[in-house]
Amino acid sequence: MYYIGIDVGGITIKIGIVDKAGNILSKSAIKTENINPDLMIQKVSLEISKLLQSSNLSFDDVKGIGVGCPGAINGKLGVVKYSSNLKWTDFNLKQSLEKYTNKLVRVANDADAAALGEIIFGVAKNYNNVIMLTLGTGVGGGIIIDKKLYEGSNGMVGELGHIIMRANGHACGCGRKGCFEQYASATALIRQTKSAMLKNRDSLMWQGVQGDINNVDGKLSFSCAKLGDKTAIKVVDKYVSYLSEGILDYCNIFRPDAVVLGGGISKEGEFLTEKVVKYLEKYDYGYKGTPKTAILTAGLKNDAGILGAASLVAEEF
Amino acid sequence: MYYIGIDVGGITIKIGIVDKAGNILSKSAIKTENINPDLMIQKVSLEISKLLQSSNLSFDDVKGIGVGCPGAINGKLGVVKYSSNLKWTDFNLKQSLEKYTNKLVRVANDADAAALGEIIFGVAKNYNNVIMLTLGTGVGGGIIIDKKLYEGSNGMVGELGHIIMRANGHACGCGRKGCFEQYASATALIRQTKSAMLKNRDSLMWQGVQGDINNVDGKLSFSCAKLGDKTAIKVVDKYVSYLSEGILDYCNIFRPDAVVLGGGISKEGEFLTEKVVKYLEKYDYGYKGTPKTAILTAGLKNDAGILGAASLVAEEF
Repeated sequence: MYYIGIDVGGITIKIGIVDKAGNILSKSAIKTENINPDLMIQKVSLEISKLLQSSNLSFDDVKGIGVGCPGAINGKLGVVKYSSNLKWTDFNLKQSLEKYTNKLVRVANDADAAALGEIIFGVAKNYNNVIMLTLGTGVGGGIIIDKKLYEGSNGMVGELGHIIMRANGHACGCGRKGCFEQYASATALIRQTKSAMLKNRDSLMWQGVQGDINNVDGKLSFSCAKLGDKTAIKVVDKYVSYLSEGILDYCNIFRPDAVVLGGGISKEGEFLTEKVVKYLEKYDYGYKGTPKTAILTAGLKNDAGILGAASLVAEEF
Repeated sequence: MYYIGIDVGGITIKIGIVDKAGNILSKSAIKTENINPDLMIQKVSLEISKLLQSSNLSFDDVKGIGVGCPGAINGKLGVVKYSSNLKWTDFNLKQSLEKYTNKLVRVANDADAAALGEIIFGVAKNYNNVIMLTLGTGVGGGIIIDKKLYEGSNGMVGELGHIIMRANGHACGCGRKGCFEQYASATALIRQTKSAMLKNRDSLMWQGVQGDINNVDGKLSFSCAKLGDKTAIKVVDKYVSYLSEGILDYCNIFRPDAVVLGGGISKEGEFLTEKVVKYLEKYDYGYKGTPKTAILTAGLKNDAGILGAASLVAEEF
């Protein structure tokens, strides 16, 4: 039996055939078009057929189709309530795709799917209770409880970047002030890096951007910190303290077996996680005498979207 | 079939026989003694026998025994890892009580048991995903997912008062700074009340304490706010904003069907919840277009401890 994983993005829709071990047999991608979403899903279904055919498989060999989609999703119903990337509103993606394929379809928010992907196919395979934090433009999240994706009663759960880190702090896109996302996202790190550079004209980081502050990205402070630049080290340490405080919050709430970090910043790997662990140890992982939470970086790399989506139908649900 | 609920406290241990509808048939209490915990549990077992006898019941009529206990509990093992109130450390309460009673025993932290009690017997009966916040000396919590108590892999979960509300804020007993508990507990409200009184000598609240600030309690600001005292109104509004920000955090994480408020402050009832709801509406319950979370106060009053404990064996687990 095989699973189909579909990673819906604003620019392309990636499709893959995945086996039980999490190997991608074959994959393909089509352009996301600004057309009626049901028509778009019809095109996706055709692409699945082609992909199966080219792999000498048929829909009979497929257990189900998982779809990871950006935006607000009601996973129980398979409805995309709202996706700003796709401009889809109240679209029953599950119903549409099931109509064209006659297969069981399960839809989830892409960050949720990524979290499940890590527990089914990735780095968190041996754990039961896992929190995933995706450190990118924002901070996304996924909650795995007893190896299952937590979806709540009406979806839209796991907005883990939107807990308050500093009451009345930085304004957040969600309407509140001081969200975790405003301190621990790549966007926040870039802001923190720029601010430190403006105060420290002698920082090595200026060389890293050829003197143009507009070139600052989420990697700059980390790479210059590794070279010993004092300003960069301070930026990284401050960023790690914000990130770790958020992780401590999630330790106290869930006492998870593992926190998996994904997204751009997570590519710093052990250089990042070692610093986080040191901070967590200083605060006893949130509380005295608590079991320690493993801090990992995402195991599924480039194909995380397809594998996360496939995991939606690979898990028992 | 009946359930036994045991509410272990630092001063007394309350025991009750509970039926399926959540009625307490009979109850009793014994003094908590500073003796070997296994001996204490032997005394509890004797008291259960007496209580059953006086109700013309036997252990055969009992499905199981639930125990709510303060401190750090590993619910899966039934072990009290540490309880400062009881001075018990690494005590296998489940094993001890099962040895003396030959009945199935389940142990949980008392705040967790209270949360489950509300979903099995109390105000949250019709909901699946519920967060309970106990607003007392500290802020305790319980997490109910799909009508089941979330216990994590090693217990000690649901420390919902220990998420950061203000980075580097008030020092907290847990070792961190700026925890939610430092802003939303009854202790915090008393501190906030005193601080406002010292700045406003003309506040009605001074009359409420006969001029002695040591008499301030968690009710004072609420009762004077109801009488129109401007300082008291400001204190309550500020307190509500802190509490609501924490609730918004939990809305964004869990998107729960309901948040149940327990503990001393929750006795303010609708006067409190109406203010909280107004605040949540202002922030779209954490995010635009999200399903609304019901804000309730605990339904189980004086016997909440016994009923919460009994619910541990009343739920399917």
